[in-house]
Amino acid sequence: MEKLKKFVDGKVFQGVILGVILLNALVLGLQTSKSVNAAAGDILSVIDTVCLCIFIVEMGLKMIAYKFFGYFKNGWNWFDFIIILTSVLSGVAVFSSFRILRVFRVFRSLKGLRGFKMVSSLKPMQVIIGAIGKSLPGISWTALLLIVIYYIYSIIGVTCFGEAFEDWFGTIPAAMYTLFQVMTLESWSMGISRPVMDVFGSAWIYFVSFVLISSFVMMNVVVGIVVNAISEVAEMNRKDEAEEVGTANIKEEIDAVKDHLAKLEELLDKQTAK
Amino acid sequence: MEKLKKFVDGKVFQGVILGVILLNALVLGLQTSKSVNAAAGDILSVIDTVCLCIFIVEMGLKMIAYKFFGYFKNGWNWFDFIIILTSVLSGVAVFSSFRILRVFRVFRSLKGLRGFKMVSSLKPMQVIIGAIGKSLPGISWTALLLIVIYYIYSIIGVTCFGEAFEDWFGTIPAAMYTLFQVMTLESWSMGISRPVMDVFGSAWIYFVSFVLISSFVMMNVVVGIVVNAISEVAEMNRKDEAEEVGTANIKEEIDAVKDHLAKLEELLDKQTAK
Amino acid sequence: MEKLKKFVDGKVFQGVILGVILLNALVLGLQTSKSVNAAAGDILSVIDTVCLCIFIVEMGLKMIAYKFFGYFKNGWNWFDFIIILTSVLSGVAVFSSFRILRVFRVFRSLKGLRGFKMVSSLKPMQVIIGAIGKSLPGISWTALLLIVIYYIYSIIGVTCFGEAFEDWFGTIPAAMYTLFQVMTLESWSMGISRPVMDVFGSAWIYFVSFVLISSFVMMNVVVGIVVNAISEVAEMNRKDEAEEVGTANIKEEIDAVKDHLAKLEELLDKQTAK
Amino acid sequence: MEKLKKFVDGKVFQGVILGVILLNALVLGLQTSKSVNAAAGDILSVIDTVCLCIFIVEMGLKMIAYKFFGYFKNGWNWFDFIIILTSVLSGVAVFSSFRILRVFRVFRSLKGLRGFKMVSSLKPMQVIIGAIGKSLPGISWTALLLIVIYYIYSIIGVTCFGEAFEDWFGTIPAAMYTLFQVMTLESWSMGISRPVMDVFGSAWIYFVSFVLISSFVMMNVVVGIVVNAISEVAEMNRKDEAEEVGTANIKEEIDAVKDHLAKLEELLDKQTAK
Repeated sequence: MEKLKKFVDGKVFQGVILGVILLNALVLGLQTSKSVNAAAGDILSVIDTVCLCIFIVEMGLKMIAYKFFGYFKNGWNWFDFIIILTSVLSGVAVFSSFRILRVFRVFRSLKGLRGFKMVSSLKPMQVIIGAIGKSLPGISWTALLLIVIYYIYSIIGVTCFGEAFEDWFGTIPAAMYTLFQVMTLESWSMGISRPVMDVFGSAWIYFVSFVLISSFVMMNVVVGIVVNAISEVAEMNRKDEAEEVGTANIKEEIDAVKDHLAKLEELLDKQTAK
Repeated sequence: MEKLKKFVDGKVFQGVILGVILLNALVLGLQTSKSVNAAAGDILSVIDTVCLCIFIVEMGLKMIAYKFFGYFKNGWNWFDFIIILTSVLSGVAVFSSFRILRVFRVFRSLKGLRGFKMVSSLKPMQVIIGAIGKSLPGISWTALLLIVIYYIYSIIGVTCFGEAFEDWFGTIPAAMYTLFQVMTLESWSMGISRPVMDVFGSAWIYFVSFVLISSFVMMNVVVGIVVNAISEVAEMNRKDEAEEVGTANIKEEIDAVKDHLAKLEELLDKQTAK
Repeated sequence: MEKLKKFVDGKVFQGVILGVILLNALVLGLQTSKSVNAAAGDILSVIDTVCLCIFIVEMGLKMIAYKFFGYFKNGWNWFDFIIILTSVLSGVAVFSSFRILRVFRVFRSLKGLRGFKMVSSLKPMQVIIGAIGKSLPGISWTALLLIVIYYIYSIIGVTCFGEAFEDWFGTIPAAMYTLFQVMTLESWSMGISRPVMDVFGSAWIYFVSFVLISSFVMMNVVVGIVVNAISEVAEMNRKDEAEEVGTANIKEEIDAVKDHLAKLEELLDKQTAK
Repeated sequence: MEKLKKFVDGKVFQGVILGVILLNALVLGLQTSKSVNAAAGDILSVIDTVCLCIFIVEMGLKMIAYKFFGYFKNGWNWFDFIIILTSVLSGVAVFSSFRILRVFRVFRSLKGLRGFKMVSSLKPMQVIIGAIGKSLPGISWTALLLIVIYYIYSIIGVTCFGEAFEDWFGTIPAAMYTLFQVMTLESWSMGISRPVMDVFGSAWIYFVSFVLISSFVMMNVVVGIVVNAISEVAEMNRKDEAEEVGTANIKEEIDAVKDHLAKLEELLDKQTAK
């Protein structure tokens, strides 16, 4: 069992798996080309199936090595498990007629991120990613605020422009998609706002206010993340520096000096008393 | 009275109101769909009216609990009051023919932000929002600067391009809208500038300079907000750290040491004098 | 003379001038409207001329108050002088046929920035503006780098695409304008790159590389300004803090303690010697 | 040899070379104009060849001055070498029929960056550029992450939309170019997404998710660079400040004070013992 664990976590095994992931990604890429598919489609799908089998075996070995429940304690293992599950399900789907599900096999390439995670271990960058990760829950309220804003604007949009512009504001989902496009500033004016303004003269209030509000909210998000990341990194640096320079225990040092002085005073008092 | 206050501020009451807000938002959403409206339009408008009544009762209870003037001391209560007022007015408008005013009922969904405010109480994010809020008056001068720039450019635009491009530069408000579009960089070149340049060869000076100036001003705004937020957060961190490490009163400590020494010197002087 | 200086720098005089600036800006705005011009065009141009005369008198008074050379020591006065000079020249141009020069009168509205400068005196924002101002010469090398990049890319553009796309890459200035548009990401792909790629298959290298390089350079500029402004503000804060907390002269304090100790030692040595 | 070195690194020589670079850049620009080419094309190409010869002589002199291997120890010299090599090769190509290679001569203008490097020596900016340079390897993982995301999305794109939209999603490279365009937000909705959605109703999931993911990754890159640059500059400032204020050796100072005190105590003990 311990031996299996060592083997599974060893560099050789992980290197082979990374190689299979890259091969599988290449095969998935080649399968999109019609000419390649016509010439060697059968071989490619065989390789693809073999790769999937190797991944299943890898998962099985890890499950045995870590016992079934230990396996699922690692987030990356869940990640693997779900990817392989969807791959197998989409493999079954090939025989049925849901060919679109085959696309989900592509996510197997994401397995590569795991191997890649091991490579990248530059410390400062990890601090920043950690800081961004920490600030995400803090900005979740912004997501809620955006949803409320989107909802209100899409209801107004559907009510006011829905009949005249079926494509853009026909239903609430359509209006939300249009608002997302406006938020990215893509063709918001020439494409959407000006045609709407030709019918409803004061529609500019709707679009300009949405552009301003959504830009302001997004700017808040970015500023929040930058500031959080900076203060997190600064915090870390400050601790390092405090230890190195020794300012952290200046007070203790001065207290020690005071103790010395108190002793001296006592000695002198005794002498004088003599 | 105190009992009513407790009830009104209690979790049960606020939970129910939040539920009503969500229900009302859902109803407002469903009313935009023609098919749903045809099937159950009457029920929806009844629910909508009931929700509005509940909000009015809520407002009434709060007014009684906090006495009339105490109610208006809270900014969120003003917010509520205005939303319900516009809702009632737009409700009256339904019977008359200003159907467009019905849209204002949507703003009732904003009441949800109040309940949401209670949920989000992550400290770091509040510091950042506070810092952004503080820096807003500081950047109000940028708003004024932008208005002056917009005004000058729109007068130039109307004077030079007004006759040839009625839609974009016909009047000062039209030119301002066009300049806002140019500032967001949306179709500024292919959509606006190139057609204008086909008529007025040197129009590129106008558009390129406006893009550069407005980008620079907006960058200043963003940099200003980022820097303000960072120095605000840094200020807070520094105070925390100073207290924790005790560097804030190093001088006092050293003064205490000096006092000790002065006493010692005095003692020694006495001894020597003896 | 001193009296005149006081009057010219007084609040009453400056308030009146600010009022005239606003009135003049309003008149310039109204003159763009055909219907207003038809109804009251004569009155408006009379008011405009009167405003210009008031500005000339203001400038004259200031020149007398500060003597001729003292007047030109202030940057804002140069600003005024140039604006009024162009206004007078464009006024003369009205009688001749260069009507386009009349537009330069609009810049008189910029005089308002001067009065506005007095209003805005929020300290933190001024620090940031100062920091941005300071970092501008530091990033001038980026401007040079951008010019070299633009020049090389426009020569390549004209040589490769010039004949097929006369409008976009016919001459070097045209190519530079097109590249500026590409840098702002406006219609760079659907508008410019895809049509060019239909003729020259590998044109994507040209456009994608330019988008990446120019984005990277612009990002450097923004990062440079942000970092400069932050370190400038942090520097200021640190000095404030150092003074307040008294860490700046800790070493001196400790030296004083040492002097005390040296004296004590001397005393004790004397005693012991006795 | 030493004399040649001094001459080659001297201001006169470098000034002349910078002048030749500017002249060459001007000639390359003029050669793009048909009318100029018709009038003085021969002269221009002679000047161009002369400039290239001067550059070759310059390179030769430097190689002699620094000996052959010393020359290649400097990165800028490699830069020069490659530019001149491509120029010579493209010059040869003129006689053959690969006229397109002539364009590579333009890169000679980049030699100007070398002279320009000497001019720009503003310290703060160099720190920032250094900081950005340092953070680049740290964000290389983001580049890898982006490649994985691009690859997966392009395979999905080709599989799902490839047949219906040959131009945008026909092959993997085409899909990658389209995704790059979507990442820059250029016409992503009106140009690409909406037409695709007309055929495949749920294509919005594909595009919206890609816009969100790629924006998030790019934001991480920018935040990472900003934070790195700031903490680098802050680190430098802190060291400067520590030296200046003398906090760096506070502990040593206090230790010195303690030593003094220990001596005093000893003295007193001796006295008391007497």
